[in-house]
Amino acid sequence: MNHTEARVALSFLAEPGDPALGALLRSCSPDEIVAAVSAGSDPQAALPAAGRGIPGLAAAFGRWRARLGQIPPAAQRGAWERDGMRLLCPGEPEWPTRLDDLGDARPVILWVRGRVDLRFACLQSVSLVGARAATAYGEHVATELAAALAERDWAVVSGGAYGIDASAHRGALGADGVTIAVLASGLEFGYPKGHHELFAAVAGHGVMVSEHPPDRAPSRPGFLVRNRVIAALSCGTVVVEAALRSGALSTARHARDLCRPLMAVPGPVTSTQSEGCHEIIREWGAVCVTRARDVIENISPAGDGLGDRRRGPVFPRDSLDEETTAVLEAVPGRGGGGLAAIAVAAGVDLNTAIRCLGVLAAAGFVERCARGWRVRKNA
Amino acid sequence: MNHTEARVALSFLAEPGDPALGALLRSCSPDEIVAAVSAGSDPQAALPAAGRGIPGLAAAFGRWRARLGQIPPAAQRGAWERDGMRLLCPGEPEWPTRLDDLGDARPVILWVRGRVDLRFACLQSVSLVGARAATAYGEHVATELAAALAERDWAVVSGGAYGIDASAHRGALGADGVTIAVLASGLEFGYPKGHHELFAAVAGHGVMVSEHPPDRAPSRPGFLVRNRVIAALSCGTVVVEAALRSGALSTARHARDLCRPLMAVPGPVTSTQSEGCHEIIREWGAVCVTRARDVIENISPAGDGLGDRRRGPVFPRDSLDEETTAVLEAVPGRGGGGLAAIAVAAGVDLNTAIRCLGVLAAAGFVERCARGWRVRKNA
Repeated sequence: MNHTEARVALSFLAEPGDPALGALLRSCSPDEIVAAVSAGSDPQAALPAAGRGIPGLAAAFGRWRARLGQIPPAAQRGAWERDGMRLLCPGEPEWPTRLDDLGDARPVILWVRGRVDLRFACLQSVSLVGARAATAYGEHVATELAAALAERDWAVVSGGAYGIDASAHRGALGADGVTIAVLASGLEFGYPKGHHELFAAVAGHGVMVSEHPPDRAPSRPGFLVRNRVIAALSCGTVVVEAALRSGALSTARHARDLCRPLMAVPGPVTSTQSEGCHEIIREWGAVCVTRARDVIENISPAGDGLGDRRRGPVFPRDSLDEETTAVLEAVPGRGGGGLAAIAVAAGVDLNTAIRCLGVLAAAGFVERCARGWRVRKNA
Repeated sequence: MNHTEARVALSFLAEPGDPALGALLRSCSPDEIVAAVSAGSDPQAALPAAGRGIPGLAAAFGRWRARLGQIPPAAQRGAWERDGMRLLCPGEPEWPTRLDDLGDARPVILWVRGRVDLRFACLQSVSLVGARAATAYGEHVATELAAALAERDWAVVSGGAYGIDASAHRGALGADGVTIAVLASGLEFGYPKGHHELFAAVAGHGVMVSEHPPDRAPSRPGFLVRNRVIAALSCGTVVVEAALRSGALSTARHARDLCRPLMAVPGPVTSTQSEGCHEIIREWGAVCVTRARDVIENISPAGDGLGDRRRGPVFPRDSLDEETTAVLEAVPGRGGGGLAAIAVAAGVDLNTAIRCLGVLAAAGFVERCARGWRVRKNA
């Protein structure tokens, strides 16, 4: 069993965020863990010595062994991949390195579906979250805010739920922007079912994300566990509308715990759906934001995306290596171009093009746009 | 010309907040200043030496001398007093010592009208301010907030204007509470005229305040100058609804400059009348408040008025002097009693009763209530 297969197997054995698995992965490789769980008798003894002292390990092994029969045959994985889903493991080019800030709670794998590269989409992204039982006010604000962020080339991350989440995705899509939906179910299951068309649109212009096996239904605790991924993927989190006990506040708590900027949109004090927003502004120090400009100023003090404060690259062009220079020269100046076209023009493979564009974006030479990538004005 | 007469004369010569007069009063007495302004030739030379170096003094003397003819005869002052107005000078028993925090900008005199003692009403008071062009939402919130504060024995200070100010006064009156209106015109002029009945009600259950001569019409800059008095009189200021360039933000600025707690009520981000509130929450660090409890917690960390955190007196009963003990024994335990009744029962005059009640309130023995004063439960 190779590394990727072992991680897939673990994603069937353990629930996302399982602390025993996270702790174990610090000292044992995925295939060592799967081998031990599958061992005939005394499975813990089959672990490398460094992994044997983890608290709660016996109970965890019990849970995981009970699910050994659920690991699907390799053919199933191939079918999912032919269905447009791709599998990401930590360390791979498209793996969003922001997730590594979660430490032991980092997802074991991610399933993604969509046209956009997840890692780069997350580089300049904001989570907009809030109540499912949103008011017309909240949905209006979420839609407008998402559209305005998308127009400034910020990707909008949310959870694909009814209410604020859906408005955020739709606002970004309406502005021809990139949006990322992180589901609490598998991607094939696609919860909630009523968002089948919305999820197809997100995959068409952005990316769908889940750490669950594609056919997995959501579970009640799964929503709260999923929220850590929403907070970790993005540069900052905005709560648009939330009652005092809303699940959106769990995303806010994760953002705060990760030291990511936390913001909230105020609303009428007469609305219970704004009480959570006011609470975190007053008690947690969330920044009170009313428009996209406030959000961007709060996330990137240098003002990326505000239009009037663009800076040039952070190091000179002639310090780039040969491949990166070739990729930079292949990036169109106006209008932008897609990843594949850039890779072909530069004469490199897709993974190399992705890596080089990441370096170039971080250094300020290129930037994402509606059509893919373009050279930045000051570069 | 005695001290009080001289201050009245100065209130006719100089506009409220005149910085030259404030600076001059640091080194010269009011009657020395009036005498110099009235002097036949070289008026500045008539000042005590310490006062002669004030910047802008020549121009100020020019302005003041032009108004010498406006000082009314003493009979006029008597007519105003018979009309229910009383004159307060710094240092007098009813003078609100909070105003002394204004330094050179402290009012020269105050005219007040109303049943309530201004100094004690201010001891536990909150300013609620906001837009004249208020929305139905803002007026609703101001009314409810004022009523809830009044029910917890907090006096509500505002400016008597249309919109939020009027709602704040009405909310406090509706809850049988004390409210204080600080006008930008004289009290007899009573601007805005449409609030004639409201002002009568405020005088009946609270107190009307102005630093202008009673017959003076308001001037445009006078509103901004007046706002410093609103901020200084109260323990803290709440902006209920304000557009970005609203005059209410000048009150907020004075509160901030005086290091008084500054709060704002959030509202829909789609409402221009809430933009100023969101701005001061985000940029000035105003605390986001949504209900009376938030306001009281922010103003008095010990939680006075929250009901469940009452503390006992700060020093023992037997350390009180004879008069104060007599007044304390005259204060009813339940229901409360009026000032005059307490003074009679204690065998002291009104001013002595006021002074002793102030000491007793500050020390936690007595508290204000709807009927006047009562002994505190833990005292």
